[in-house]
Amino acid sequence: MGSLPLNTFNPLDPAEFSDESHAVIDFIADYYRTVENYPVRSQVKPGYLSKHLPNQAPLFSEPIDTILEDIRHDILPGLTHWQSPNFYAYFQANASTAGFLGEMLCSGLNVVGFNWISSPAATELENIVMDWMAKLLKLPPCFLFSGGQGGGGVLHGSTCEAVVCTLVAARDRTLRKIGHDAISKLVVYASDQTHSTVQKAARIVGIPPTNFRIIPTSAASGYSLTAHSLRAAIKADVAKGFVPVYVCATVGTTAVGAVDPIRDLGKVSNEFGAWYHVDSAYAGSATICPEFKHYFDGVELADSISMNPHKWFLTNMDCCCLWVKKPSELVDSLSTNPEYLRNKASEGNEVVDYKDWQISLSRRFRAIKLWVIIRRYGVINLVEHIRSDVAMAKQFEMMVSMDKRFEVVVPRKFSLVCFRLKPRFDGDDASSINQRLLEMVNSSGRAFMTHAKVDGMFVLRFAIGTTLTEMRHVEMTWKLIQAKAEDILLEDV
Amino acid sequence: MGSLPLNTFNPLDPAEFSDESHAVIDFIADYYRTVENYPVRSQVKPGYLSKHLPNQAPLFSEPIDTILEDIRHDILPGLTHWQSPNFYAYFQANASTAGFLGEMLCSGLNVVGFNWISSPAATELENIVMDWMAKLLKLPPCFLFSGGQGGGGVLHGSTCEAVVCTLVAARDRTLRKIGHDAISKLVVYASDQTHSTVQKAARIVGIPPTNFRIIPTSAASGYSLTAHSLRAAIKADVAKGFVPVYVCATVGTTAVGAVDPIRDLGKVSNEFGAWYHVDSAYAGSATICPEFKHYFDGVELADSISMNPHKWFLTNMDCCCLWVKKPSELVDSLSTNPEYLRNKASEGNEVVDYKDWQISLSRRFRAIKLWVIIRRYGVINLVEHIRSDVAMAKQFEMMVSMDKRFEVVVPRKFSLVCFRLKPRFDGDDASSINQRLLEMVNSSGRAFMTHAKVDGMFVLRFAIGTTLTEMRHVEMTWKLIQAKAEDILLEDV
Repeated sequence: MGSLPLNTFNPLDPAEFSDESHAVIDFIADYYRTVENYPVRSQVKPGYLSKHLPNQAPLFSEPIDTILEDIRHDILPGLTHWQSPNFYAYFQANASTAGFLGEMLCSGLNVVGFNWISSPAATELENIVMDWMAKLLKLPPCFLFSGGQGGGGVLHGSTCEAVVCTLVAARDRTLRKIGHDAISKLVVYASDQTHSTVQKAARIVGIPPTNFRIIPTSAASGYSLTAHSLRAAIKADVAKGFVPVYVCATVGTTAVGAVDPIRDLGKVSNEFGAWYHVDSAYAGSATICPEFKHYFDGVELADSISMNPHKWFLTNMDCCCLWVKKPSELVDSLSTNPEYLRNKASEGNEVVDYKDWQISLSRRFRAIKLWVIIRRYGVINLVEHIRSDVAMAKQFEMMVSMDKRFEVVVPRKFSLVCFRLKPRFDGDDASSINQRLLEMVNSSGRAFMTHAKVDGMFVLRFAIGTTLTEMRHVEMTWKLIQAKAEDILLEDV
Repeated sequence: MGSLPLNTFNPLDPAEFSDESHAVIDFIADYYRTVENYPVRSQVKPGYLSKHLPNQAPLFSEPIDTILEDIRHDILPGLTHWQSPNFYAYFQANASTAGFLGEMLCSGLNVVGFNWISSPAATELENIVMDWMAKLLKLPPCFLFSGGQGGGGVLHGSTCEAVVCTLVAARDRTLRKIGHDAISKLVVYASDQTHSTVQKAARIVGIPPTNFRIIPTSAASGYSLTAHSLRAAIKADVAKGFVPVYVCATVGTTAVGAVDPIRDLGKVSNEFGAWYHVDSAYAGSATICPEFKHYFDGVELADSISMNPHKWFLTNMDCCCLWVKKPSELVDSLSTNPEYLRNKASEGNEVVDYKDWQISLSRRFRAIKLWVIIRRYGVINLVEHIRSDVAMAKQFEMMVSMDKRFEVVVPRKFSLVCFRLKPRFDGDDASSINQRLLEMVNSSGRAFMTHAKVDGMFVLRFAIGTTLTEMRHVEMTWKLIQAKAEDILLEDV
């Protein structure tokens, strides 16, 4: 280690690679052993890091031990610890040993499989593992390579990429019939619970922001989008000369974990010729369990479906599965064929060139990660992993409902519990006490939750699924929440 | 290892994490020791892998040793080995120990820094390291956070993402003035040497495919886009009522490594109010050396500039640096602000929320990778690394030009040499012999090159920069090329 003399500079020397990698492994293992001790949500102030680091790159090499020491002292305190067992914010990004091993293999082999020939195994393993995943989720054959109906899957980095690509395909499918100038007539439909990524994607692909319909949901339907309201919105637009191009339904919404009626919305979308996408970023993982399978009923009506293993499938960042019924519609919009990428295999049409199924040309070998995870754990453990998180959420939900000061706001479906302190008097919307409760819990450093608003209510979200979370953490956090609530309620007397 | 009993399933157990990670490190170190022995371009036939793997996920867990053994037997033969010292195809994706360590830290900490509060250090380290990189590339202060002019940088996964985001900002900046319906009037300008990603991005953001101008270049300008031809193209469009929205210039084109005149094209772009982007995906890394700095002359006229450390800066996939003069223009187009992400820091406007500078919400902690690379090697070694690749390319170019059967087609600027077998008689375009030569070299498994076409010529591209490549590999490959050429020329007698 230390300064590397110029004449022997070999940044991929196997011995040095081993030594330094082992040092980093030990560092990370130690991090997992102690992650519970850090404030979950970082407590630093904006701009803290520039006080610790020089404002320009070092001229000379520095040893890895020095760098790791700086990470410990300067970086770790500034992290919000997504791997802390007391992280209940957003949705979890649940790391695992196998996910990490898969990332190491991806990064170590460092192949770039943009087309088949640039690394055949990268493409073919992705074909195979996407079919494995589709079978685990019990998707119909129309989404599988082996389904014999022309469908197939691809790994993206995020749902937003998946939505941009399917939106572009949907847009072009429609514009081919009515001409490009009609782009200003295209309308995209979502609910007020749909992830903001869909609105952003619609804007990215050139659909006017005013043509994004946010259809209201309510407690009556459990915050799911009803076929009735979708149909009414589409009909109103069609009457005005607009063209419905894309409908997004969700299994497991971000705010409250609601599930849209997939079959009903699919029928309406199909009737009006709009592309039908099902986003199951968070809850898609749960459908590997038979008891959650029914949420996908009617998914054969969809043009595309996506879910993120990097949320709840023990997959380190990043990984989003996208299946499409007609990949040729993606390729029609996203294909490029510059001379420097031409090759016999692609021209023979015998192979998949994934560059034409995604935004970017370059791509990481994510398939090996997902494949290692599935093999290392096996379906039985993966199912158990989902069930144990759901069981903890159920337990938490019960504890909340047993405390008269609190209420569960939306019935729990998966491992997300939405609750709040009840209003204390007529006309109290309870927003301010719940907002204070959230801030007190988060600034204690002992747990991190986030919030949502539904029907004007300020709701606390408790998302269980971080890999290291055990029931004792959930129990301790509930006690913490109760204690902070007690303080707030006493103050207000 | 082996089957994991359900009741103790802990997929992030630190001891197991250590053991299994060390096993994978040893596997990868061994791969680097032996990578030279594999056929560089995989020699498998389409569909080979499905014969080796089961068509559904295993029910039970499998030990990591079994998985690694399967990778050795089933996956490695199907890889095209981008880390082989005899890989000269496309542009290199040069891995390094520090790049790998950085990826491990990114993946192990597994934080998701979409906004500041979700992991302050992830955002702040990215701010700092983007300024470090900007200074290394000698970019003007207008692109730095610390430049005091409102500029700054962000890490994307690929150039295509960077181009999509800047195109969306450019599109909306123009449409805000002339109305969304005018999207069909917007025109994007590039040369016939510009990377295909720009054309794809223009299509993604909704600009009509017929409004993408591919301006021809020629040998006379070394295949760079001239200001004269750009101006003529823009003027012709403006006369017809079109609106120039985006111009992409390149430092180091993909096909032949040409450099566009950055200042001259910038003046034309600015004159017509088009967004001016400079793509230096490959050659940007070289500008850390003073001798290449002048290629960026005039870059202060650009609205944005991008380069890919994952090509030539010892950075494992993926990593693309994008700097913009007015990040607010990205934010105007890409910002979303759903309730569940609201927080005090963001509302105080004191912090950067990178979700609004990119396509996706989620993002990996890539900054730690780039930071580890720069610190571990230091500027001196990084400069030396670029220079040694350039020196090898110079040597290769010299060997080619000393063999009368060959010619260097385009003068070399960086580490890419474009050459071919000369035509043998009047009217011979030499395409078929060069095509055969390429195929013979690649199917030998001993080296992998790709090709390009310029002015109708079939040109062999020899891109030097894979980390393990030493002069002995270049020399051996040149001998191989000469021997295959000899065979071809003898056959044809």
